[in-house]
Amino acid sequence: MPSQFDPPSGTRDFLAAELTKREWAFGVLRSVFASYGFEPLQTPAFERVDVLLGKYGDEADKLVFKILRRGAHEATGEADLALRYDMTVPLARVAAAHGSQLPTPYKRYAIGQVWRAERPGRGRFREFTQCDIDTLGSTSLLADAEVLCAHHDAMAALGLKDFTILLNSRHVLSGLLEVFAVPPELGPGVLTSLDKLDKMSPREVIDEITSRGLAELTAAELVGTMTAQDATERIRTSLKPSESGVAGMEEVDRLLGLVGSQIPASRIAFAPRMVRGLSYYTGPIWELAAAGVPGSLGGGGRYDHLIAQLGGPDVPGTGSSLGVERVLTLLPDEVTGLAGRTDVAVTVLADNLAAPSFALAAQARSAGLRASVYLGSSGKLGRQLRWAADQGARWCLIYGPAEREDGTVTVRDLTSAEQEAVPASEVASYLAIRAARAGA
Amino acid sequence: MPSQFDPPSGTRDFLAAELTKREWAFGVLRSVFASYGFEPLQTPAFERVDVLLGKYGDEADKLVFKILRRGAHEATGEADLALRYDMTVPLARVAAAHGSQLPTPYKRYAIGQVWRAERPGRGRFREFTQCDIDTLGSTSLLADAEVLCAHHDAMAALGLKDFTILLNSRHVLSGLLEVFAVPPELGPGVLTSLDKLDKMSPREVIDEITSRGLAELTAAELVGTMTAQDATERIRTSLKPSESGVAGMEEVDRLLGLVGSQIPASRIAFAPRMVRGLSYYTGPIWELAAAGVPGSLGGGGRYDHLIAQLGGPDVPGTGSSLGVERVLTLLPDEVTGLAGRTDVAVTVLADNLAAPSFALAAQARSAGLRASVYLGSSGKLGRQLRWAADQGARWCLIYGPAEREDGTVTVRDLTSAEQEAVPASEVASYLAIRAARAGA
Repeated sequence: MPSQFDPPSGTRDFLAAELTKREWAFGVLRSVFASYGFEPLQTPAFERVDVLLGKYGDEADKLVFKILRRGAHEATGEADLALRYDMTVPLARVAAAHGSQLPTPYKRYAIGQVWRAERPGRGRFREFTQCDIDTLGSTSLLADAEVLCAHHDAMAALGLKDFTILLNSRHVLSGLLEVFAVPPELGPGVLTSLDKLDKMSPREVIDEITSRGLAELTAAELVGTMTAQDATERIRTSLKPSESGVAGMEEVDRLLGLVGSQIPASRIAFAPRMVRGLSYYTGPIWELAAAGVPGSLGGGGRYDHLIAQLGGPDVPGTGSSLGVERVLTLLPDEVTGLAGRTDVAVTVLADNLAAPSFALAAQARSAGLRASVYLGSSGKLGRQLRWAADQGARWCLIYGPAEREDGTVTVRDLTSAEQEAVPASEVASYLAIRAARAGA
Repeated sequence: MPSQFDPPSGTRDFLAAELTKREWAFGVLRSVFASYGFEPLQTPAFERVDVLLGKYGDEADKLVFKILRRGAHEATGEADLALRYDMTVPLARVAAAHGSQLPTPYKRYAIGQVWRAERPGRGRFREFTQCDIDTLGSTSLLADAEVLCAHHDAMAALGLKDFTILLNSRHVLSGLLEVFAVPPELGPGVLTSLDKLDKMSPREVIDEITSRGLAELTAAELVGTMTAQDATERIRTSLKPSESGVAGMEEVDRLLGLVGSQIPASRIAFAPRMVRGLSYYTGPIWELAAAGVPGSLGGGGRYDHLIAQLGGPDVPGTGSSLGVERVLTLLPDEVTGLAGRTDVAVTVLADNLAAPSFALAAQARSAGLRASVYLGSSGKLGRQLRWAADQGARWCLIYGPAEREDGTVTVRDLTSAEQEAVPASEVASYLAIRAARAGA
């Protein structure tokens, strides 16, 4: 039941375990992108409303969080700023603002939050992280191949194995519409219907296409070609009369050749039915799918006019969006190796022993370990050992009057419950050796 | 001159160089905090308006960015959400919402953006990063000492050297007011004036205090004590009749003793004049100052009732805020060792050489290096070598028809301009060895 202390609807508080996992994943992504020479970009959380609105249609505009003007203008009820809705509109603005400072081509990645006033639901949030890689300023198919490989490597580096990259080209799709003589105005609808062949029967798709206004015979032929046992070969053959179709197949074949040294053949396939809804793609398109995971794990493609449409300069572009929120749900809970809150827990058994206990914690830190001192009010060892165990600590350093007398520290291994007296001045090296042995 | 493509007033686009430096610094901070057993927390960018407003007074409320209601409610011009103004209000809400899941004490750090509608100016932003460490649920002075040491270590880990921690206690200040018989209603004003002794002459401060309503003789005596050669000793002596004063001195002395093993004595000092404006502090207070840097590099103290005042549970707390934006301006530009955009640039000298060039880049990545292929349209080697140099690459892999014939790659060292033919299959190990030698 939501309480007054919950975060706003559709948003989340990330406590340590979840946040550590997220930061680990983002770190992995950053390092893969950097290895491809992509550089990071971070834009403000909000943009001016005129930069943001009217770029993705009325439906999207309704989902934008708008920020009220301030001071005397607050009473107008007007908004002058709005929260980032995606990473692409800010990219277009940055390309316009900093064009001369940016390298050509500009290969950038962005990992950050976006905000959308969607109805919150299972796996659907109003604040969520997007992760995009894009290359602006190159028409080369190598740019598409590079984005694809980086997307693949990122998924693999996160430990995902069972996923497939569905590859297609807008030119293949327009070639298909051409050779089946689909009237231009029906094209988008027909493609949308074809995209449903995974979820609907061929008969249902034929009916849907027919209801859109295409002759039933043509619809049946088109769906027959797409669903044939040897669909790929039949499509390739049927595309031959179309210039666009031939160019599209060439695009797909060349891309498969380019990425072949990096993406295992089992993980990428020509998928002529894959449409990707967004109308701004102009060349290759791709989508990642994982066995048993509904929806996609991200995707992308070439969009040679989008940046100009979004208010930026007229530069070609290609990019991928990584669906990180979904990918994060697929990761095991313990991916970081950072179990527990601390490695070393240090007792404080009396007020006058606090300073040396404090120094012991510093010694443990100098050995590269995480160390915490007891901050509670109980002077009882049993209580403090329980606290140490609660922290998930591997060692507890016990420093009482007897240890002070001897100039030692009792190091208790909380896994084995064995303990040993160690000269106080040697605690750092003692712990460093133990930790190395334990593979810390 | 601001253009339509600039980010909104008071916000910044962080391009690669600056962002890499920031991420490096945040990574350093996270690792220091983790070494003390602090755990990370991330809350949403916005909170419900009722959670945020009315917590820090009317002046602060005016600086809050409010988010317009959506859909049919947009026309009301009302706000239901507001952007995070600091990290403490969300901490109070989290303590209330997730209390049972949190460890006791709860030691957390938060590094994230906050938004304030201040008038933008030099070094003053509307979107900036705050970095806080706090411990909730412990009244122990060890908790204060731990926060102080973590703050110190964080600054030191970032490479700062010339900074001082000014340490005081609210109890010292109230003891002073007590022994000098300052009427309670004049107390806050008198302390504010004393805090100006760094910038104003004793005479001016005496006048200011007198104008606040304190007898001139008392004002002169107070200022005389604070500015005496042996001020610290005189204050210590004069505090003896006050219970609060004695407790405050004890607090300061014990804290100095606790942190002594970790903070060099030259970097921390009892500073009886340091007041820290915020009225919610209840115990020790501290502030970091650096030679030649106006203002503070952060600070903090104990605030035993603040969390309850902010709507959270009634738990004691202590914490530090790190002033990261200011600290970032003090760091040298190149702290990350990540010069250039890439380590290895790979030519693409003909369309049919693209796939093997692509595979060579993958080999360089497998050696732990950042690698980019040429994405432009020129087939000319000279042009591509210029591109490689522009990327800041250390090596350029040249793969042309001759190399293909020989099964080699020409590895050109862009620093020395020497080049060598390397068997194509050995490029990864060749580069790995060179990189290790170069200390990459």
